[in-house]
Amino acid sequence: MVVLSVLTPVLAVVLCLVIGFMLVRSAQTETTSSTSSGETERTPKADFRPWVDQDLQDDTEIKGREDEDGDWVDSNEEEELLHVAYSASVYPEETMLERSKDFYTQMNQRRSVRFISPEPVPREVINNVIRTAGTAPSGAHTEPWTFVVVSDPETKHQIRLIVEEEEEVNYRQRMGDKWVHDLSRLKTNWIKEYLDVAPYLILVFKQTYGILPNGKKRTHYYNEISVSISCGLLLAALQNVGLVTVTSTPLNCGPQLRLLLKRPANEKLLMLLPVGYPASDATVPDLKRKPLDDIMVHI
Amino acid sequence: MVVLSVLTPVLAVVLCLVIGFMLVRSAQTETTSSTSSGETERTPKADFRPWVDQDLQDDTEIKGREDEDGDWVDSNEEEELLHVAYSASVYPEETMLERSKDFYTQMNQRRSVRFISPEPVPREVINNVIRTAGTAPSGAHTEPWTFVVVSDPETKHQIRLIVEEEEEVNYRQRMGDKWVHDLSRLKTNWIKEYLDVAPYLILVFKQTYGILPNGKKRTHYYNEISVSISCGLLLAALQNVGLVTVTSTPLNCGPQLRLLLKRPANEKLLMLLPVGYPASDATVPDLKRKPLDDIMVHI
Repeated sequence: MVVLSVLTPVLAVVLCLVIGFMLVRSAQTETTSSTSSGETERTPKADFRPWVDQDLQDDTEIKGREDEDGDWVDSNEEEELLHVAYSASVYPEETMLERSKDFYTQMNQRRSVRFISPEPVPREVINNVIRTAGTAPSGAHTEPWTFVVVSDPETKHQIRLIVEEEEEVNYRQRMGDKWVHDLSRLKTNWIKEYLDVAPYLILVFKQTYGILPNGKKRTHYYNEISVSISCGLLLAALQNVGLVTVTSTPLNCGPQLRLLLKRPANEKLLMLLPVGYPASDATVPDLKRKPLDDIMVHI
Repeated sequence: MVVLSVLTPVLAVVLCLVIGFMLVRSAQTETTSSTSSGETERTPKADFRPWVDQDLQDDTEIKGREDEDGDWVDSNEEEELLHVAYSASVYPEETMLERSKDFYTQMNQRRSVRFISPEPVPREVINNVIRTAGTAPSGAHTEPWTFVVVSDPETKHQIRLIVEEEEEVNYRQRMGDKWVHDLSRLKTNWIKEYLDVAPYLILVFKQTYGILPNGKKRTHYYNEISVSISCGLLLAALQNVGLVTVTSTPLNCGPQLRLLLKRPANEKLLMLLPVGYPASDATVPDLKRKPLDDIMVHI
């Protein structure tokens, strides 16, 4: 009896340690899986230096083993591409100055326009705009983009239903919020008529990884940044031909839209751009852009 | 004594539960802090729906409380901006087609060039290029970008030292790797002569948050995507005047470069672009871009 009463606390301690250890393990697992899957992949392993800059949030998986460079090499080094002479247009200084001014003036006229005309747009113009977006640089020249151009009315409508349903949930959730003081004003925010009306919807997908000929996954470094840069070129190309769009990143609709458009698992929606001519009565908020001194520092 | 020997296991159990609870708490904290700080901020709280799409890895802090839209509103809704008529250049179809082709041809000639001439470039051209980048759309029109243009030779050299030191560490670390079979070839990868030679280095910072007039932080939604889009416009503007660059994201140099350039804590380095005319003997790898059918799907 004395032996037992001495042993009991020891047994209790051992039991508690075992339970405690199991709780710690399960808590670690839970915490990890509560972050999104992309983040889980990026959790740096302790034994190597992260290969992707910690300041960048691009969802490139950190592997630390691939043949990658801080420069965005235009070649896959394994292929040992031939180097060729680079020939460029060279302009006299005066022409450069004029061209830089004209291009700025043109781009500065670009605005996000929500009122898009149903008037049809030549298909070949859209093709050239997408070709232009495809000239963007990308990490290790992986060209990790897929542009899904939707003109089919039924598919456009399905997209609208998915986007509006999610948007409504998002807005309604904030109903109690101090910012929300006018339901009818908000309503206009989740009704996206342009998704039916615009002759084209361009859904831009980023390929988070590629598939090598041997079936293995190939990491697409900086894929989100690369695809965003290509969207910058896309916006420039649209503006250059007098078409308008509004940059949108539909909240939480990516997976549903990916399934609707039958895109593979390595593709994730980055942006949705309705494209067309501006409606004749289109309006835009009377905003100003920051002056040069607020965005540039010279050293 | 009997009472004590009965109480001892109870006390042991209580003590173990307390210790176990503390271990669980600390394990959760550790797991969270082992991911990068950006990710910690993004860990979704359980009690609200993440406001930023889980497919997007942009490091916008998830707050769920701000007046934000899936569309990139061009106005801060709190300011209730006036809406004005949107007027646009409208081109006949034939002109559109021609313009779209010409712009594609021009952008398709862009290449990442590492061999940059020291020849000076007119400052006003650089100003216009930065102005053009500043016309990009941004989440809630926050314009979350700072372009640091460096022409001072001493600062350029300091930047080179920081970047090369980090690059060398990165490369040496992979020395045992099966990919690394030629040290001398690799060496050319961490020597970045262009950082001294190029007349301008443009360091693009993203502002991860802003400061409101009342001193509070303002979340900059989609700041990394926004700034990447503006880099797309920057590349287009450079190409338009016959200047070259190479898109680089210096690994792990952000914090040091931020301090060197005296940028505030809300700014993080996204890209470093050396800018100038191409060197007369510049070469580029003989790469091809994917054809339209590989990057576009029409529905």
